[in-house]
Amino acid sequence: MRAREIAEFIGGRLFGNGEAEITSAADISAAGTGQIAFIQGDPGELETTAGCVIVGEGFEDVSGAESVIAVRNPKLAFASVAARLHPPTRRKAEIHPSAVIAPDAKIGENVFVGAFCCVGERSTIGSGTQLRAGAKVGDGVAIGDDCVLHPNVFVEDGSTLGDRVILHAGVVVGADGFGYVRGESGEYQKFPQIGTVVIENDVEIGPNTCIDRGALGETRIGAGTKIDNLVQVGHNVQIGKRCVIAAQTGISGSVTIEDDCVIGGQVGFGDHVRVQSGAVIGSQAGILPGKIVRPGVWWGTPIQPLDEYKRQNAHVKGLERLKKEVRDLKKALEKIKEGNEDQ
Amino acid sequence: MRAREIAEFIGGRLFGNGEAEITSAADISAAGTGQIAFIQGDPGELETTAGCVIVGEGFEDVSGAESVIAVRNPKLAFASVAARLHPPTRRKAEIHPSAVIAPDAKIGENVFVGAFCCVGERSTIGSGTQLRAGAKVGDGVAIGDDCVLHPNVFVEDGSTLGDRVILHAGVVVGADGFGYVRGESGEYQKFPQIGTVVIENDVEIGPNTCIDRGALGETRIGAGTKIDNLVQVGHNVQIGKRCVIAAQTGISGSVTIEDDCVIGGQVGFGDHVRVQSGAVIGSQAGILPGKIVRPGVWWGTPIQPLDEYKRQNAHVKGLERLKKEVRDLKKALEKIKEGNEDQ
Amino acid sequence: MRAREIAEFIGGRLFGNGEAEITSAADISAAGTGQIAFIQGDPGELETTAGCVIVGEGFEDVSGAESVIAVRNPKLAFASVAARLHPPTRRKAEIHPSAVIAPDAKIGENVFVGAFCCVGERSTIGSGTQLRAGAKVGDGVAIGDDCVLHPNVFVEDGSTLGDRVILHAGVVVGADGFGYVRGESGEYQKFPQIGTVVIENDVEIGPNTCIDRGALGETRIGAGTKIDNLVQVGHNVQIGKRCVIAAQTGISGSVTIEDDCVIGGQVGFGDHVRVQSGAVIGSQAGILPGKIVRPGVWWGTPIQPLDEYKRQNAHVKGLERLKKEVRDLKKALEKIKEGNEDQ
Repeated sequence: MRAREIAEFIGGRLFGNGEAEITSAADISAAGTGQIAFIQGDPGELETTAGCVIVGEGFEDVSGAESVIAVRNPKLAFASVAARLHPPTRRKAEIHPSAVIAPDAKIGENVFVGAFCCVGERSTIGSGTQLRAGAKVGDGVAIGDDCVLHPNVFVEDGSTLGDRVILHAGVVVGADGFGYVRGESGEYQKFPQIGTVVIENDVEIGPNTCIDRGALGETRIGAGTKIDNLVQVGHNVQIGKRCVIAAQTGISGSVTIEDDCVIGGQVGFGDHVRVQSGAVIGSQAGILPGKIVRPGVWWGTPIQPLDEYKRQNAHVKGLERLKKEVRDLKKALEKIKEGNEDQ
Repeated sequence: MRAREIAEFIGGRLFGNGEAEITSAADISAAGTGQIAFIQGDPGELETTAGCVIVGEGFEDVSGAESVIAVRNPKLAFASVAARLHPPTRRKAEIHPSAVIAPDAKIGENVFVGAFCCVGERSTIGSGTQLRAGAKVGDGVAIGDDCVLHPNVFVEDGSTLGDRVILHAGVVVGADGFGYVRGESGEYQKFPQIGTVVIENDVEIGPNTCIDRGALGETRIGAGTKIDNLVQVGHNVQIGKRCVIAAQTGISGSVTIEDDCVIGGQVGFGDHVRVQSGAVIGSQAGILPGKIVRPGVWWGTPIQPLDEYKRQNAHVKGLERLKKEVRDLKKALEKIKEGNEDQ
Repeated sequence: MRAREIAEFIGGRLFGNGEAEITSAADISAAGTGQIAFIQGDPGELETTAGCVIVGEGFEDVSGAESVIAVRNPKLAFASVAARLHPPTRRKAEIHPSAVIAPDAKIGENVFVGAFCCVGERSTIGSGTQLRAGAKVGDGVAIGDDCVLHPNVFVEDGSTLGDRVILHAGVVVGADGFGYVRGESGEYQKFPQIGTVVIENDVEIGPNTCIDRGALGETRIGAGTKIDNLVQVGHNVQIGKRCVIAAQTGISGSVTIEDDCVIGGQVGFGDHVRVQSGAVIGSQAGILPGKIVRPGVWWGTPIQPLDEYKRQNAHVKGLERLKKEVRDLKKALEKIKEGNEDQ
């Protein structure tokens, strides 16, 4: 793409050489000729040899850039351009001869099924979907169009995936949840784990994350939600639309997270928590079972509004001084007592 | 099953239509005709159209239910009925032609070996055991009867599994533990990781959980213990019988957890911890190396008895007031001093 | 090996029967005839029937041992001997007929490629490297000599591995990092994840750990670094040489960890943290985004120097007493006031 085509594509104002040819995206610290980068704020003293730099309006003066494009949201514009310069790999339609596909499975058009894949009975794979090597789909699974199941993904019987869902390597969808009842001689008996998992459109799930099936009902991940690596999603969890959940967070059974929430990494949810739409929860926070988390920013274990958490933290840090003050008060009091007795 | 057969099966008292035909289990909030559900406590105002509801004794009055069965422990009874209505899939005996099985491996009767499975030299697979697609068993592994290894499970050389063990997708049993010795030029040399793993009868392990082999001795998971997803069990860990360990907990090397312990999610154990039989440890707790955890309920980092933890938490929450009190005391003291000086 | 050969091999002084034949390594608590063990400090009252015991200088008197070897660092010497007695499995050169290898991939000498492995286009596998069953290597990947990729490992397109790298079962290298830009209608658009991963020589990575590719640049793991199970390494993370990172730690994007750091388990790093060479971070610690962690020992959330953390913890534990002191002061003050008023 030429710089002027890019400017048009992202609806920005072009400065410098509109004929600059751009072939790849790069970080501003490394970008050179033929590369496009972006700067989110003030470029300051920065020097670059980038072929094109996307900047915020009013920051068009970038030293050394062959061309500059000014837009309202440079990062967003850059992401769009990069997605066009580096489109995700779309493997050509192919069913690898080693794949094991049930005779009654329905495979859409332009589907890629790599080596050592399995597709079980009565399952459907939508058009344009790619199953990379070793991905395994159980029985009665419905997978929409243009999904990517990366290597060694496993989708258990009866799960449903929408369109454009991306499951990264090693993701496990629909395994039994963790539910037992203690029997009379102390042994644990399995509580039924016979529900389902529904993953809506445009969800992306990071490597080795686990989404358990519902015990009796369903586990659901809402459209456009993005989940990072090594996350645990328990049975009957309901996650809304456009949520972001960072790595290694653990979500216990029957938690509800409403739309547009942002959850940090290594957060722990007790069961039956409800997070209301728009809440932001900081990394490593811990939420007690049954808690309702209102909109706002939260942190700590047990979770608190961020302001309270910070104030409390400051009080704790001030404890050494507080102790000293109490000691001083004691001494002062002793003195007064002595003085009074002397009188 | 008819309601009267279910009542007999779980030893409960039947009310309503004993001929009601029940074909599946459901949550009380969703159960309809032909479905069985349970209520643990007082049904209250609840309305249902369930074919059968299992309730506690004295709570037989469930509005709308076609039949009701009263028992001592409704959840346990429900689990038993659901297990009968929805028995776990038992795949027919089959060795998939793509499976790679060492000539000297011993495969029991009625064994299912799915596509792309491996069984190594001298390994034995007990009768009725199922290896689902892509499960891999190393050399010299002994697996008992009626086990299920879900897709992409890996069991390393020399491990031993009892009967009815369930390993969910992506579980890794018997990989090297994390042990190094620093050499003289600062490099890390591997400490030998040549021990074994023993998993006793009726253990269930969640997806992507890792059980490392012993360094020199063995790592052991006791009979009837249930481990959730993404848990880390280090080398030489000894877990007793009937323990429950929730998701993402990490257990360092040489930890001992005695029988009948309950461990929350995201708990972290330092090495050489010993948890005594019957202890309960709350989620996200952290236990310092070498600590002995007595029976009781524990929480926090470093771990404390739950009562102390709560009291301490309350003190911390009260810090703002305490600071104010100290400030007030100071002022009062100043006043007294001034008063004294005035005299 | 005979005891005198071992003494020579580790440069130690031999006591007892130099002809004792040693065939395996064991823990001192279990070692018998024909086995070698070590004792790090004073053997004390210990009784053993070990064929050989490695001890620190000055501790040669081990009751019952057939032979004893004294060295400066017994654990290190033991590790060297054990590595010789129990060398890691080196599978014979073989390309399993089920493996799918791109015609233009370059496979070195003495390479083992197990069943159900894949090697993509233009990838190179160095001499002596072993790909165990189900390991999958994408396109344009460079893997050095004498590496081991355990079962079900996945290495994504464009990644680079040095020599003697060990990736345990289920490791995922080079999947997309977690980066999105919020679009104008609230939806998350993928920020480009088109960088690479470089893993240097002698790195070992535990089961189911994930190393994300750089967004635009590279993610790098330095030579000799050891990473435990279920660890998350985000995009653009730079880890130095000879670091040790324990299980379930999560490292956000663009974190830099310099050489020779030791990181405990379940630690959480905010993005853009820099850990300076030689720092030690305790388990479950949490580090705020952008923080610079100087050399020394650190603990807590937010992270503090260990001494401060301990002092602060002691203050918190002392809160009950402090509250009582404040209460007592109040009473004393009241009394003084009353006394003054009485005057």
